[in-house]
Amino acid sequence: MDKKWHEIDLFAKNAIREAGRKIIDSFDEVLNIQTKSNVNDLVTNMDKQIEKFFVEEISKAYPDHRVLGEEGYGDRVKDMDGTVWIIDPIDGTMNFVHQQRNFAVSIGVYHEGIGMLGYIYDVVSDELYHAVKGNGAYVNDEKLSPLEDVPLEEAIFSLNATWLVPNRKVDHERFIPIVHKVRGTRSYGSAAIELAYIAAGRLDGYLTLRLSPWDFAGGKVLIEEVGGIVTDLNGDELSMVDNSPVFAGNRAVHEKVLNEYLKK
Amino acid sequence: MDKKWHEIDLFAKNAIREAGRKIIDSFDEVLNIQTKSNVNDLVTNMDKQIEKFFVEEISKAYPDHRVLGEEGYGDRVKDMDGTVWIIDPIDGTMNFVHQQRNFAVSIGVYHEGIGMLGYIYDVVSDELYHAVKGNGAYVNDEKLSPLEDVPLEEAIFSLNATWLVPNRKVDHERFIPIVHKVRGTRSYGSAAIELAYIAAGRLDGYLTLRLSPWDFAGGKVLIEEVGGIVTDLNGDELSMVDNSPVFAGNRAVHEKVLNEYLKK
Repeated sequence: MDKKWHEIDLFAKNAIREAGRKIIDSFDEVLNIQTKSNVNDLVTNMDKQIEKFFVEEISKAYPDHRVLGEEGYGDRVKDMDGTVWIIDPIDGTMNFVHQQRNFAVSIGVYHEGIGMLGYIYDVVSDELYHAVKGNGAYVNDEKLSPLEDVPLEEAIFSLNATWLVPNRKVDHERFIPIVHKVRGTRSYGSAAIELAYIAAGRLDGYLTLRLSPWDFAGGKVLIEEVGGIVTDLNGDELSMVDNSPVFAGNRAVHEKVLNEYLKK
Repeated sequence: MDKKWHEIDLFAKNAIREAGRKIIDSFDEVLNIQTKSNVNDLVTNMDKQIEKFFVEEISKAYPDHRVLGEEGYGDRVKDMDGTVWIIDPIDGTMNFVHQQRNFAVSIGVYHEGIGMLGYIYDVVSDELYHAVKGNGAYVNDEKLSPLEDVPLEEAIFSLNATWLVPNRKVDHERFIPIVHKVRGTRSYGSAAIELAYIAAGRLDGYLTLRLSPWDFAGGKVLIEEVGGIVTDLNGDELSMVDNSPVFAGNRAVHEKVLNEYLKK
């Protein structure tokens, strides 16, 4: 691995673990919850504080890197030139507020559009998923195995109920045959956790209709390092500066669902 | 608390933690998975081994107690006379096999039909939810708070996708308005974990169509100790010797969903 990326990797892991400690310490404080436009879109002081922390640390250590963050404390990133950190300080905010678990810090570091580093930190479980491009993916010190192909009828598939009932975003009926075909479905309420589960082989497919780059930037690097696939619902490459539907899975499940259910 | 139940409580907790250690130790062994009639109904050697362990320990310590267990090593229990242990050695077997997490040991101890002791042990998270009737519910050493009423539009509701798409068991369309109304939905693939989450206030409602007494016996005691409600979909008391649909929640969510969505 290039020495520069090794150094950035160490820096990122330290910052992420420090962010995790700040989040845990906040549990005792009263959460001062503000609502954005949508009641489902809760945002807490903590999201903002953690993003600010990352932006400050990164700009001190790597002043020429740019930061694209959910809360908007970073740069106005419109292209992927140079090195860009794509950060979700707390992915799964609703879980954070309601459950104080099942949320994660998610970071992807891209260089000239290529995913170089990926991190998802499940703070409460103290599980840091991390990958450097070309060097495999890990959860804490344990190396993740390359994903095995799983037949669709033995697959566990993650899919939120929102997309299985009539909704404004998409024709829900196209997803129903997938539910009938797979062994079981799950929904955890955090894209980062769900992508980490794909990387760890605990889920075989994850499909969702409405993600932002900070939701999938870290997960994409992790999943690709273990041989999985992350695309939009047509199988096309995701843009790192636009929102998109996302479909992730091991190679066999991704190919089968794409060809037999999504492309129809 | 009656001294006798205090003793049984200590005995149960020790047995459950020992079962947890056996399960963790088994992760390194190859799981010898057998399929029951249904591909979704995986059963492992471990389920059987753990149930046998409980049956043997209980019959040594309390020879007059009966055991109703998923794997059938206990007694043929047709009524709730005397003291009956209702045991699911590994609830969430599919998670156990695919994820090696998100499964639980679940035990309810009933005396003359009354739930006296309830346990759900999330083995991998090392979280033991436990309750003695009239003495509150705990997770490990931390006392769980009485459940707060949550308005339905702020509720997180657990509901498997199976029941939201056309299926042989029930008209799925009756559940769709619930999904539209609540703040978010989840699905974890283990009734015991989902009932424990209700008891801990991390989920506000949980609805499922096909549970056996061992799936809900422990959770019912836990949830009732924090003021929550567990019934069938008509709001009627559950039988402890028959399968049933189950609807659990905090008082406000349970009442609202029952009256406005399920009883229609």
